[in-house]
Amino acid sequence: MNNEILLEGERLDDLELDNLMIIQKQSGYKFSTDSVLLANFTKVRQNDVYVDLCTGSGVVAILASYKNKVKKSYAVEIQPEMADRATRSIKYNNLNIEVINDDLINLTKVLGYESVDVISVNPPYNPVGLTSEKDEIAIATHEIKTNLETICRVSSKTLKYGGKFYMVHRADRLSDIIFELKKSNLEPKVLRVVYPKASKEPNLVLIEAKKGAKSGLKILSPLVLCNEDGTETQELKEIYNRKNI
Amino acid sequence: MNNEILLEGERLDDLELDNLMIIQKQSGYKFSTDSVLLANFTKVRQNDVYVDLCTGSGVVAILASYKNKVKKSYAVEIQPEMADRATRSIKYNNLNIEVINDDLINLTKVLGYESVDVISVNPPYNPVGLTSEKDEIAIATHEIKTNLETICRVSSKTLKYGGKFYMVHRADRLSDIIFELKKSNLEPKVLRVVYPKASKEPNLVLIEAKKGAKSGLKILSPLVLCNEDGTETQELKEIYNRKNI
Repeated sequence: MNNEILLEGERLDDLELDNLMIIQKQSGYKFSTDSVLLANFTKVRQNDVYVDLCTGSGVVAILASYKNKVKKSYAVEIQPEMADRATRSIKYNNLNIEVINDDLINLTKVLGYESVDVISVNPPYNPVGLTSEKDEIAIATHEIKTNLETICRVSSKTLKYGGKFYMVHRADRLSDIIFELKKSNLEPKVLRVVYPKASKEPNLVLIEAKKGAKSGLKILSPLVLCNEDGTETQELKEIYNRKNI
Repeated sequence: MNNEILLEGERLDDLELDNLMIIQKQSGYKFSTDSVLLANFTKVRQNDVYVDLCTGSGVVAILASYKNKVKKSYAVEIQPEMADRATRSIKYNNLNIEVINDDLINLTKVLGYESVDVISVNPPYNPVGLTSEKDEIAIATHEIKTNLETICRVSSKTLKYGGKFYMVHRADRLSDIIFELKKSNLEPKVLRVVYPKASKEPNLVLIEAKKGAKSGLKILSPLVLCNEDGTETQELKEIYNRKNI
């Protein structure tokens, strides 16, 4: 089976949830904890039209769609090779997720305006100035092909009124995130700040926004990933056991 | 001495720092922990031009000016009776703080554009729709005479390039705060979320912004005020002992 779906230089990784698997390039970009956190933070109803942007290997789309028993999802990826790997991972897992291999800027042309109930996105985190590379990893992690402003604007156009937007991003960009969301009529409603350890500075934020909502932000308790001795906290263990956070 | 400075219905309260005292109306608005947190969060250099907006009793101006040995400060209060009490409290404590009894919208006329190094503000927290009252307490706690947008706009005009802005506000208004600050070219640089207890939702945020700065927010560790049994945390005790946070 593996030989049929894997291309040269690829491997099949276990998502540790009911035998879900994901194809990743051995030397390419690999998903990490932020994607698992986002997939657990994202709430989708079974009949929602759900889209995962900047899907990469497809990990967030696969986990969130499977966990929430979503009937039809979409996963958008600009890089052809990554989109191809995501397509094969989805097929391997027998999920109804359609991969759109396109620039997300074209999303309303593909799906229509105000057609989507839920969007999740684990975008490239870093300003483009921080790299001169343009390989697969650079594009997945730097704002080379898209940026925060574009993601918020396109998401707002694509979401129905009252639709939900879920994102994980760098903690130090929280001000930019809130500003761009509000500018695009996506009102931040829930914020969770993620600390690698309680004694460390936070490195990530999880944010939920709602199109057209009144302002009013619920700040959740801090999410601490590791104890001071480096072992996983109880909450991180529960997240990896796929319980909602 | 007390009889000379107190009007009928007033009392002299101990600020518990080197015999600093504050005059408050027995039945009026009284300062609370948020002001002490803000005064400790606000960093002023001795020769800075420092202004405290919405000063009320003057508590933040008094504590921050005294603690930082500021040579000349200003405290702005729109309500004449409160401004008068602040003036008498400042005189009692022998501090060089000039009370400006005016609408803060006139601040640039009084002090000039780009004339100030540091601004602190503990503004009215609540949208005006939540009260029909217009008494002293209502004006101190609701956006009747000013609002967040005006405070940010006027502060930006008054601050020098690179000047600092410190505010305490309701946690659920964090998105509005960040949006209005950025709109006014006051870039949020430091955020501290305040929890009444670790198990409760946060109720306050402390935020530091810098005029004209690049984006990039440092999120500090959560500030927890009370242990689960209701006693003060070590950090709150240290704040009340006037150590910087």
